Amino acid sequence: MSDKTSNQMWGGRFAAGPDAIMEAINASIGFDKRLAAQDIAGSRAHAAMLAAQGIITDSDAKAIREGLLTVLSEIESGEFTFSTALEDIHMNVEARLKEVIGEPAGRLHTGRSRNDQVATDFRLWVRDQLDAAESGLLALIRGLLGQAEQGADWVMPGFTHLQTAQPVTWGHHMMAYVEMFGRDLSRVRDARARMNESPLGAAALAGTGFPIDRHMTAEALGFDRPMGNSLDAVSARDFALEFLSVASISAMHLSRFAEELVIWSSAQFRFVTLSDRFSTGSSIMPQKKNPDAAELIRAKIGRIFGANVALMMVMKGLPLAYSKDMQEDKEQVFDAADNWMLALAAMEGMVRDMSANTPALEAAAAHGFSTATDLADWLVRETGLPFRDAHHVTGSLVAKAEARGCDLPDLSLEEMQDVHGNIDASVYDVLGVHNSVRSRMSYGGTAPQRVREQIATWKERLA
Amino acid sequence: MSDKTSNQMWGGRFAAGPDAIMEAINASIGFDKRLAAQDIAGSRAHAAMLAAQGIITDSDAKAIREGLLTVLSEIESGEFTFSTALEDIHMNVEARLKEVIGEPAGRLHTGRSRNDQVATDFRLWVRDQLDAAESGLLALIRGLLGQAEQGADWVMPGFTHLQTAQPVTWGHHMMAYVEMFGRDLSRVRDARARMNESPLGAAALAGTGFPIDRHMTAEALGFDRPMGNSLDAVSARDFALEFLSVASISAMHLSRFAEELVIWSSAQFRFVTLSDRFSTGSSIMPQKKNPDAAELIRAKIGRIFGANVALMMVMKGLPLAYSKDMQEDKEQVFDAADNWMLALAAMEGMVRDMSANTPALEAAAAHGFSTATDLADWLVRETGLPFRDAHHVTGSLVAKAEARGCDLPDLSLEEMQDVHGNIDASVYDVLGVHNSVRSRMSYGGTAPQRVREQIATWKERLA
Amino acid sequence: MSDKTSNQMWGGRFAAGPDAIMEAINASIGFDKRLAAQDIAGSRAHAAMLAAQGIITDSDAKAIREGLLTVLSEIESGEFTFSTALEDIHMNVEARLKEVIGEPAGRLHTGRSRNDQVATDFRLWVRDQLDAAESGLLALIRGLLGQAEQGADWVMPGFTHLQTAQPVTWGHHMMAYVEMFGRDLSRVRDARARMNESPLGAAALAGTGFPIDRHMTAEALGFDRPMGNSLDAVSARDFALEFLSVASISAMHLSRFAEELVIWSSAQFRFVTLSDRFSTGSSIMPQKKNPDAAELIRAKIGRIFGANVALMMVMKGLPLAYSKDMQEDKEQVFDAADNWMLALAAMEGMVRDMSANTPALEAAAAHGFSTATDLADWLVRETGLPFRDAHHVTGSLVAKAEARGCDLPDLSLEEMQDVHGNIDASVYDVLGVHNSVRSRMSYGGTAPQRVREQIATWKERLA
Amino acid sequence: MSDKTSNQMWGGRFAAGPDAIMEAINASIGFDKRLAAQDIAGSRAHAAMLAAQGIITDSDAKAIREGLLTVLSEIESGEFTFSTALEDIHMNVEARLKEVIGEPAGRLHTGRSRNDQVATDFRLWVRDQLDAAESGLLALIRGLLGQAEQGADWVMPGFTHLQTAQPVTWGHHMMAYVEMFGRDLSRVRDARARMNESPLGAAALAGTGFPIDRHMTAEALGFDRPMGNSLDAVSARDFALEFLSVASISAMHLSRFAEELVIWSSAQFRFVTLSDRFSTGSSIMPQKKNPDAAELIRAKIGRIFGANVALMMVMKGLPLAYSKDMQEDKEQVFDAADNWMLALAAMEGMVRDMSANTPALEAAAAHGFSTATDLADWLVRETGLPFRDAHHVTGSLVAKAEARGCDLPDLSLEEMQDVHGNIDASVYDVLGVHNSVRSRMSYGGTAPQRVREQIATWKERLA
Repeated sequence: MSDKTSNQMWGGRFAAGPDAIMEAINASIGFDKRLAAQDIAGSRAHAAMLAAQGIITDSDAKAIREGLLTVLSEIESGEFTFSTALEDIHMNVEARLKEVIGEPAGRLHTGRSRNDQVATDFRLWVRDQLDAAESGLLALIRGLLGQAEQGADWVMPGFTHLQTAQPVTWGHHMMAYVEMFGRDLSRVRDARARMNESPLGAAALAGTGFPIDRHMTAEALGFDRPMGNSLDAVSARDFALEFLSVASISAMHLSRFAEELVIWSSAQFRFVTLSDRFSTGSSIMPQKKNPDAAELIRAKIGRIFGANVALMMVMKGLPLAYSKDMQEDKEQVFDAADNWMLALAAMEGMVRDMSANTPALEAAAAHGFSTATDLADWLVRETGLPFRDAHHVTGSLVAKAEARGCDLPDLSLEEMQDVHGNIDASVYDVLGVHNSVRSRMSYGGTAPQRVREQIATWKERLA
Repeated sequence: MSDKTSNQMWGGRFAAGPDAIMEAINASIGFDKRLAAQDIAGSRAHAAMLAAQGIITDSDAKAIREGLLTVLSEIESGEFTFSTALEDIHMNVEARLKEVIGEPAGRLHTGRSRNDQVATDFRLWVRDQLDAAESGLLALIRGLLGQAEQGADWVMPGFTHLQTAQPVTWGHHMMAYVEMFGRDLSRVRDARARMNESPLGAAALAGTGFPIDRHMTAEALGFDRPMGNSLDAVSARDFALEFLSVASISAMHLSRFAEELVIWSSAQFRFVTLSDRFSTGSSIMPQKKNPDAAELIRAKIGRIFGANVALMMVMKGLPLAYSKDMQEDKEQVFDAADNWMLALAAMEGMVRDMSANTPALEAAAAHGFSTATDLADWLVRETGLPFRDAHHVTGSLVAKAEARGCDLPDLSLEEMQDVHGNIDASVYDVLGVHNSVRSRMSYGGTAPQRVREQIATWKERLA
Repeated sequence: MSDKTSNQMWGGRFAAGPDAIMEAINASIGFDKRLAAQDIAGSRAHAAMLAAQGIITDSDAKAIREGLLTVLSEIESGEFTFSTALEDIHMNVEARLKEVIGEPAGRLHTGRSRNDQVATDFRLWVRDQLDAAESGLLALIRGLLGQAEQGADWVMPGFTHLQTAQPVTWGHHMMAYVEMFGRDLSRVRDARARMNESPLGAAALAGTGFPIDRHMTAEALGFDRPMGNSLDAVSARDFALEFLSVASISAMHLSRFAEELVIWSSAQFRFVTLSDRFSTGSSIMPQKKNPDAAELIRAKIGRIFGANVALMMVMKGLPLAYSKDMQEDKEQVFDAADNWMLALAAMEGMVRDMSANTPALEAAAAHGFSTATDLADWLVRETGLPFRDAHHVTGSLVAKAEARGCDLPDLSLEEMQDVHGNIDASVYDVLGVHNSVRSRMSYGGTAPQRVREQIATWKERLA
Repeated sequence: MSDKTSNQMWGGRFAAGPDAIMEAINASIGFDKRLAAQDIAGSRAHAAMLAAQGIITDSDAKAIREGLLTVLSEIESGEFTFSTALEDIHMNVEARLKEVIGEPAGRLHTGRSRNDQVATDFRLWVRDQLDAAESGLLALIRGLLGQAEQGADWVMPGFTHLQTAQPVTWGHHMMAYVEMFGRDLSRVRDARARMNESPLGAAALAGTGFPIDRHMTAEALGFDRPMGNSLDAVSARDFALEFLSVASISAMHLSRFAEELVIWSSAQFRFVTLSDRFSTGSSIMPQKKNPDAAELIRAKIGRIFGANVALMMVMKGLPLAYSKDMQEDKEQVFDAADNWMLALAAMEGMVRDMSANTPALEAAAAHGFSTATDLADWLVRETGLPFRDAHHVTGSLVAKAEARGCDLPDLSLEEMQDVHGNIDASVYDVLGVHNSVRSRMSYGGTAPQRVREQIATWKERLA
């Protein structure tokens, strides 16, 4: 394996070699080796095109393309020795290629530059991650649909301000997250479509005088088209920022659900039991069972959005075209992608494993005058009171029940009529939690029938 | 105008009124009055639907709908007095409506809640801003196309690392930004399509038992459909975060161009002259002409992305459904939207007004061995050297020219042949900057012909 | 009031006036009028020094200093009309001063520039906010000490992972926040000491040839000394970033406490009752009492840290000395300061008003095998088991109790001895929650005696 | 080396072991092994204290303390095999200790928990980094003092808005950064003093019933005192956030200087030549010499501040005491610390190596009417004009020179007197750049004498 420095490749211009600090701050091979497969795919497409256009010979192209496969297999098997002196993945691969095939290796870099090469590699990598995110989101959505189906009519409290608001169904709550992760999925697909253009052939920044065919390499790499401006092709990192934005918003949704799971797992709530697989114990408190996975998922938004901030700051105010600052793009995206995929997988696992504590859910749903709104609505419907007045009457009834230490259905009809004379016994029909959720039949509402319709719609959409 | 507090409207539950601190931290009317038009449009659609479904009478609906127009005209004319005690725009409008039309006003809030109401208002407002951003981006793109057309063959230096790299054309550089702002535009359109769903009728969180027609209100407000889950409808703020992400990425592009304009306006570069309209002077240095607008545009990324961070942190880990934390969403989005629109408009103005200093651009383009790559490419094409070797030879020629204090075309043929024997006189054809840019005919390259094709493509796309 | 534009003041250089967009993006008077008092204080100090150094006459200085007081009183009374055309607070004040006192007004700007003037104004403003934050933190700490004193021996669950871990005392929990806000206070004081240097007299960037006395103006404005480098004096904004960092960390502490208050207020926890003063109701659910103030405080971290991000991005990569980008500093700091002060005041109010539900706290503390660690420690102390083995034995006892559906103290001695033969009846002494907290006498531990010692230490520190 | 899982150590509670996803998201050994030395130092201090307090025997303590040294040497020599199944550094070390010394290893964890253990390790690590930052900042400041001393009277343009403003000296410009990095240093010292308190002995969260001596372990580890509240001790991460804030502000200063170096290295400016050691070439453009180190330093603010954002988001709204979210603290701080140290070292290297191009600096300083302010000041001093009027006169003279295409000193006395009759020939004395900088004798001003005084002051301060 070569230990000649890439500095030698820049030609004879530099008297002094970079010292240790410079090597530490400058070399990217420590992280961009993750682009090896993409780099080699890009080079193979480029070599084929150079030959098709008559820029290099067919036999050189064949040697290059086969040699690159050899290098790839060395990398995949772990026998490849990466050299920091060779700076980056491009130089490491090319240097090894030269050892493997000799002189033709020097013809590969015709009509391109490291600037378009790294832009191509990185786009291919990000595209793979968007595909992985699509799979992860789909699996999570399917997990949630399973929970929703199972508990389409389990009653639980719907909260606002973490205060009991109105009864809802477990299925309805799960489906809320299906909607959120569904929009995340749609953002992933939009981002993929937008970024799927090839920078290859933009060369350093200005294009090239060699008669290259950028459409051919674009097609070979699965891109929809070549990018239309070579300066933009090597300078653009909005695709990476969009990836980080989409991931951050998805991490925000994950953090909300994770927070709920942490709260629901507390001794005070006991709404769910998480599986042992996604919990851990304590080194000092033997009785503990901690929702570690949920907490870690909740935390991932920091890491993912931190990467978004980092790259946004890096890109702020950079003149065209390539600046070395942009080398800081990859580690941020790598780390965010890894953690997003991990959080999606862990959340899916938790969702599939968790079990709802239905008695606790139902008891909590009935608590705290949760059907007061149903009472107010009944007053509007049955007595013709304007809503604002009905709301006021209900407030007085709640105050009366609170003073007596009982719940609304425990008030006698007389007590009710003391507050408003037109109340009759049929009012008790709307006060139970099951009556309440069944009644909320508006589109998108919590009624089990509505929830089942939404589940069906989503299943069809994913089929 | 009413000065009764909205606290009174919550019913009789609270003994103590909120004091000054609570009012200061809790009231949103200071900023959410910007949603007045959207709030009234939403209420008018809701009233019409309630009547169509027989939930309120036609005459009540008529009174409500006309009364709301009266309130709107009072707000627009500036005669409306907003009350902090009434907390928010919804309560301010409804309280005034009650003064204007009396009892029917109390029937408006049937089958909805402030939670779905504010979600509706805010979506409508953000949708308007996405439309405004579309206009702003289109105007800016048109301004850039104008510059590109004018200078399709003006030569200037293309930079990497702010070092002269290769000659490019002014038109090519302008078109790079057309691509960037074009992708921003595409993100705006995707975001608009995704968020154009109606939360109205989700009520507090669970939907309602009133037989409302959410499709009817959705259509009346220009939404594509009602949102499919009422919990999600009142909890979701990803549309606002996506707006901020899209705006931030666009602000990043603006910051890059702004940085270039600041650098290009320096005495050392003198590449452009900005118009007096977008420059200012100094209170102490009479000779100064400062690129203030460009600097302020450069800075806007901070403000816009700061808003993105702020809302992302607010939303982190919030359990469903509505939490009061979410009231912090609006000021961030308002401020980011205002500043994005302003930055787009200022950039468009600067672009239309600025004049390129073509002699300075061309002189700079020729500087710094900028056609060294053309020389290396010539060696590959004409002498059959592998690119890596050609690169090395060129490096030696550059070193020689640098030692002599001259440029590449100033080396004699003998001096060239000392370095590589196969060089002949035809090499001088590729060393001029005009030759260089004309030769870069690869798709998306800097050749004037290619640039003109891209301009034509974009004009067609925008037609 | 003058309507002449500040553009006129730059001299006759500009042909075209700034148009509406430019005015909108460029003018700062809309926000920097909040610096009026600081601006006038700075100008008064400057005028006095100019006269003392013989640069202007005593009578001019007197006219200027008195005229500035007139302008200040106009501003404070609200009769001053700010002009956008005059751009900023400096020009607005100076233009009005000229109207009030005539020609001597033109001599005020001798030996200074708007660059050092605004740097001075802004430092004075930030210094005032650091003083306000000190007061706010001290008041909050005193409120917490009151709660801690009252409940030094109330038992409550200590959580990790929101799971019951070990019993602690209410006083101990309150004192944890005293430590946090105490460190915030220490950061405030460090920041104030570091930033209390005067930029005045740095002029535009290079200092001045006028024989000014910067020590005199520094002293007059309460600064410890003049800044030692004039380029740095007009360029530095680290004092503003440090302010935002300190505020952000404090907002983080506030968000943690706020989260606890929201969770503790839930129907499931019922650990505290917040006062009506800091709660609100629902427009549709009459029974709700929402912890709005706590939620809003929790959210403020987004806003405050968003400002930190914004200014950090603005300052990234700005060359010396002043760039117009830096005009974006003030609104971020103003907004963050306002919201930090508000959040501190609201938290203090909530802390003073809230009442702990001691029976619920004690019941929760006993739940969930919370004294398992005490049992493990007893095994180590009394039977000589290594801790790791004791931990294992305790785990088995917890599993046994869990299987029986009882708590640890409900296991019989025989059941215990089945797991480990050396257990005797004295084990029951360590299993109650009161025994548990009393036993934790290590320095900083939760034992009421230790908590009271810490309260006493803090009271002395604040005396 | 052990491959038994830490799960086994939690006791027999869990039926299912964590699967691959859980292991991936949960295990921290991949990064917290960087805390090995701190972890072992903490454990050795703890063991010594346990023996001193009679909690374990002297012989057990001796075995533990020696065994830990064995483990440390295994780790330092690279022969230690870290186990992911053992989750974290604490368990890895303890499990190996047990293999090395047997049963006494189980007594080490008496009276402490992983919560206080990791808090201790992490504080020790961060404290080391603050010490390293102090060294790095001091070295950089010394490098800048060297440059300042050398060029105390070299003239260069001072810029505002990147427009030539007034002549300054090279030394003055270097000293501006000395001031900035000097304040960074002061922040480092304040942060170190504030965070230097020991969490050890806080145990899980409540303290312990064992008669431990926290003052003894605090002293052994170089802490000033034990932390005063055990809940706070295990929950607090403000010390990490303060570290990140201080690093971010310092990175901001680095980014400003780096931006200047990039601009100054451009062909258009040519103010400095960076050494080859901190520059690189291009793979395609043989003539390029790119300021890579400066660009990478400029970019580091993104990475460091991104870490700050990440941890701030993680900590937002976390209830006391320890939550697993907090495990995300370390990687952010590790990465930020590494990059800050690297950026400081690279900047120091560049500063020591760079050479100023004094002829280019002086020529640029004279350009652009840079002594217009001197002219205005002369008018004030010599003709008694109010500054505002003098400013206007100077503006007219600049306009005249600009129209003639000459500089201010090139105007004839007659031309000057046409604008203002009182101008006489002595005006030419103030128009040269050397005259200009020499005249700016105000404290902190750019006059070489003043700059030398500041250099002397700083040298004394650092002595």
